[in-house]
Amino acid sequence: MNILLASTSTLFGGNYLEYIKSEIAELFTGIDEIVFIPFARPGGISHDEYTKVAKEFFAQLHIQVKGLHEFENQIAAVNEAKGFFTGGGNTFLLVKTLHEKNLMQTVKENVESGKPYLGTSAGSNIGGLNMKTTNDMPIVYPPSFECMGLVPFNINPHYLDPNPDLKHNGETRETRIKEFLTQNDTKVIGLREGNWIRRIGNRITVEGNEMTRIFEKDKEPYEIKSGTVL
Amino acid sequence: MNILLASTSTLFGGNYLEYIKSEIAELFTGIDEIVFIPFARPGGISHDEYTKVAKEFFAQLHIQVKGLHEFENQIAAVNEAKGFFTGGGNTFLLVKTLHEKNLMQTVKENVESGKPYLGTSAGSNIGGLNMKTTNDMPIVYPPSFECMGLVPFNINPHYLDPNPDLKHNGETRETRIKEFLTQNDTKVIGLREGNWIRRIGNRITVEGNEMTRIFEKDKEPYEIKSGTVL
Repeated sequence: MNILLASTSTLFGGNYLEYIKSEIAELFTGIDEIVFIPFARPGGISHDEYTKVAKEFFAQLHIQVKGLHEFENQIAAVNEAKGFFTGGGNTFLLVKTLHEKNLMQTVKENVESGKPYLGTSAGSNIGGLNMKTTNDMPIVYPPSFECMGLVPFNINPHYLDPNPDLKHNGETRETRIKEFLTQNDTKVIGLREGNWIRRIGNRITVEGNEMTRIFEKDKEPYEIKSGTVL
Repeated sequence: MNILLASTSTLFGGNYLEYIKSEIAELFTGIDEIVFIPFARPGGISHDEYTKVAKEFFAQLHIQVKGLHEFENQIAAVNEAKGFFTGGGNTFLLVKTLHEKNLMQTVKENVESGKPYLGTSAGSNIGGLNMKTTNDMPIVYPPSFECMGLVPFNINPHYLDPNPDLKHNGETRETRIKEFLTQNDTKVIGLREGNWIRRIGNRITVEGNEMTRIFEKDKEPYEIKSGTVL
């Protein structure tokens, strides 16, 4: 497998996918066309508008982008694609759409056969076992929370450390993930912005400039360095 | 109906339910015993431990508290209760438990018959039409997102304004609620900490020290003052 799951598409003050451009070029080596999965629709943007954003970035890498929504037979489009990029937005909307169109399993099988896959934010969540560690609001009801399991754990993208200055009693991210672990045994990778997970064959590593926080049942959370094998 | 739905149980630096003690006393006037619904289990706390926290607070008001989990026949316990308090924690866990035990509809009918209801955080979310505007992590999969609809809108508790100093690209609360409105027509009450919704009969007002932010489809969000009728 050949997979890159990034915490975010855009670093603060940066441009879309800029910080990870060379890694994306490497991921899609030898590929001139990919399918973009726009269903997470950040801020309710249309599928066409969202695909345009991806197209503009990939033009710099001389890779053509087609939006999956443009195809009449989307299952065939996935089976014929050379590679995939799923953008961020709302994970509930993304997962609902993929399940309703029977695309979750089809994309999974194609990626497991070796086609490169790029995910950012919600697009990374669906690379995990399930979407139960998303940060998103449940704006729609998906028929299932199960995802592709391209990696044998869950991801929490945009992982955010507690802010000691915040005079607010909503739960911290760490509290939420610990609540998840009271109900589930699945390991959770708290992926800070600027970090990503890379899978090449069976080797899975965390990459990027920040430390990565790992949450496991009945263990204190711990930090691992960039390059560590998961 | 006689309902109080609070954004939070505890203000920053304050004690449990302290800021709203006189309103709670008024809500439960003439009542010496209530049923506590502990199923949201904040931080994975046990039902017993959580009920103990509620008991200690209500002892000050000379009101006895029984945890709903203590009853063998929980539907009968709800039907025989004099009033209800549902505490915060994880909304997905709360809603899943209530639906699986067929309690959502039973509590709704009892509150609609006039029994007083207090909710905080997740306990307020379930007073809305559905749980699609919770902030919580989807740590379990409920059979439905539908809630009691004790008020004809949705609530976003712990409503938090965007922080201009945050160098982070996760979505703001406002972005999330706007995404909800691209998929739903339901009005959302962004309830800042320190505020609550009060329903007496058919009159519904927002109360507390802060302004309240209202989100409606195809409208700019707007602010209303404490005391405004919803």
